[in-house]
Amino acid sequence: MIKPTDKTLAATLQDKIDNLNKPKGSLGRLESLALQIGLIQQSLSPHLDHPCHILFGADHGIEREGVSFSPREVTWQQMKNYGKGGGGVNMFCRQHGFKLRVVDVGVDYDFDSAEEPHIIDRKIAHGTRNFLHEAAMSEAEYQRALSVGAEQVDACHAEGCNIISFGEMGIANTSPSSVFMSLFLDLPLDRCVGAGSGLSSSGVRHKYKVLAQSIDNFKQQLRASNEVASSLNPPLAMSNYIIRYFGGFEMVAAIGGMLRAAELGMVILVDGFIMSACMLAASKLDSAVLDYAVFGHCGDESGHKLMLDSIGAEPLLSLGMRLGEGTGAICAYPILQSAVNMINEMDNFAHAEITKYF
Amino acid sequence: MIKPTDKTLAATLQDKIDNLNKPKGSLGRLESLALQIGLIQQSLSPHLDHPCHILFGADHGIEREGVSFSPREVTWQQMKNYGKGGGGVNMFCRQHGFKLRVVDVGVDYDFDSAEEPHIIDRKIAHGTRNFLHEAAMSEAEYQRALSVGAEQVDACHAEGCNIISFGEMGIANTSPSSVFMSLFLDLPLDRCVGAGSGLSSSGVRHKYKVLAQSIDNFKQQLRASNEVASSLNPPLAMSNYIIRYFGGFEMVAAIGGMLRAAELGMVILVDGFIMSACMLAASKLDSAVLDYAVFGHCGDESGHKLMLDSIGAEPLLSLGMRLGEGTGAICAYPILQSAVNMINEMDNFAHAEITKYF
Repeated sequence: MIKPTDKTLAATLQDKIDNLNKPKGSLGRLESLALQIGLIQQSLSPHLDHPCHILFGADHGIEREGVSFSPREVTWQQMKNYGKGGGGVNMFCRQHGFKLRVVDVGVDYDFDSAEEPHIIDRKIAHGTRNFLHEAAMSEAEYQRALSVGAEQVDACHAEGCNIISFGEMGIANTSPSSVFMSLFLDLPLDRCVGAGSGLSSSGVRHKYKVLAQSIDNFKQQLRASNEVASSLNPPLAMSNYIIRYFGGFEMVAAIGGMLRAAELGMVILVDGFIMSACMLAASKLDSAVLDYAVFGHCGDESGHKLMLDSIGAEPLLSLGMRLGEGTGAICAYPILQSAVNMINEMDNFAHAEITKYF
Repeated sequence: MIKPTDKTLAATLQDKIDNLNKPKGSLGRLESLALQIGLIQQSLSPHLDHPCHILFGADHGIEREGVSFSPREVTWQQMKNYGKGGGGVNMFCRQHGFKLRVVDVGVDYDFDSAEEPHIIDRKIAHGTRNFLHEAAMSEAEYQRALSVGAEQVDACHAEGCNIISFGEMGIANTSPSSVFMSLFLDLPLDRCVGAGSGLSSSGVRHKYKVLAQSIDNFKQQLRASNEVASSLNPPLAMSNYIIRYFGGFEMVAAIGGMLRAAELGMVILVDGFIMSACMLAASKLDSAVLDYAVFGHCGDESGHKLMLDSIGAEPLLSLGMRLGEGTGAICAYPILQSAVNMINEMDNFAHAEITKYF
């Protein structure tokens, strides 16, 4: 159960921010960030400690339908590559001092733990099932993926981490993300489907058709089974069902991780399209999770801006990145640091002996 | 004389970027940045060394017309405050490892060099003259301000710096910036005038009237004196005349600094509205300076986005900041570092043994 942040501190925090040595509001987004982080930590002097990045990897049954430009084997190849330090995510973690955890929750490949000691083995299956025809995972698998996410966050928290980001490696995972977006925000599917890692326009049309058919099949199955449908009556049960029907193991692990991080009062740095879709899904399980979310980057994937607008999220960066892995989130970290530095290190008007000019 | 960057290396640089371990183009703006920095340094492995930030301070005659929300004394108060480390610019410089140089080129206050050892004294006058009635500075003062800027950049370069940003402290300096924008981009003045540090809408209307009258007076004087007008026949002479007629000492010093930095092949990180107006002015003296310019931040000042669009600049950040001092530029520095790290540290597909997926 996530506690919404206690807003009674907001006025005092805002007053501290307004009395820093600058025209009121002149540090823009840094000021609203400092307020949010102060509320999360219930502190007038918030601090960011031991940043961690958890990258979950898994494969997707829907990849078999040709919905992705990149082939399935790229998932395991990249998971191995993170151990060599040559991935985009490695570079960003080094630059900004993030500890990186790479977790296999469902990659379709058997890693050799001696050769790949950097990969934490929590494999649930060799990829999900194909949601064109059936639920991507069973209820037991779904619960296990949520738990793996929570457990990884617990491990970071135990090391003193209070700011966490999530990333993913899972070829085809913009597909379930588009479905989450369409179903959870009640938006037409065509506004939610994009090119992923590089589909042509005919590739995007094919992907759209596959996803539209998948949603049709899903709804037909619901209608066919009164038993299933009635058990899904509370919206919460329906949200859980949608997530496990379409989601990937890496996505569900991230959702479990986000929910736990919010329970623990951590700042959650949200990456691009896929992780935003996971945060959206998490918010359908417990809306208070959004109090803890900072959206790092609005990517190029068609629909991402619309998704962020629809949930009232204001991304910090908009650099046209679409690599995934969590790179957009980590890239935004210095801005969070600036917000925290601002509230802790800037003089106030009284101390600086400046004519208060606002 | 600034050499435009030699574009013959562009294809090889782009090829290196395209073969890094990521879908082609998937690091978005970082990729175009890496290309630009590679071209500036004529290197496939560019690097950013000893970043410096030069903050020029000066007062403005036009401030006497009530065009600014903040009073004139804030200029000297803030200049003193930078020595205590409590300003916004101090915080950003500490966070990102910038060496800060604070230079008085025309503040209307006599600093005590024993009390304020951090202020480099290059005072040209106690503020400019009021451009509502006359040129802000004489030709000799203008040349001196340009030289001070160049000299400060030389000092940074001698210390091994190859990436430099500029900031300003000068109450009322959005006014000359708006005039630069209107005259150099041939845009209606009302689209160039904004609230500065916090004017009300009636304050903005007053500021607009003062600036419109100033431009009228300037044009009338030009028409009245054939001698002056004919000596300004080459566009370069006219650009110089506009800059010295309306500019502040801190702005002209920044312009001189930008031109010298480009001559020396340094990356120039451009701050918000005022420094963008200075880069615009510098480009009217030598258009090749733009090859070296990276625009850090699009601020809230009305007109800034239009100015950047008009010169084809793509700012890295858009965080609603309007503090000045160069804070928007320095805040963007980690993104330049990421671009350079990307090209130097990411594996290529061959080395990473990844199916090349583009």
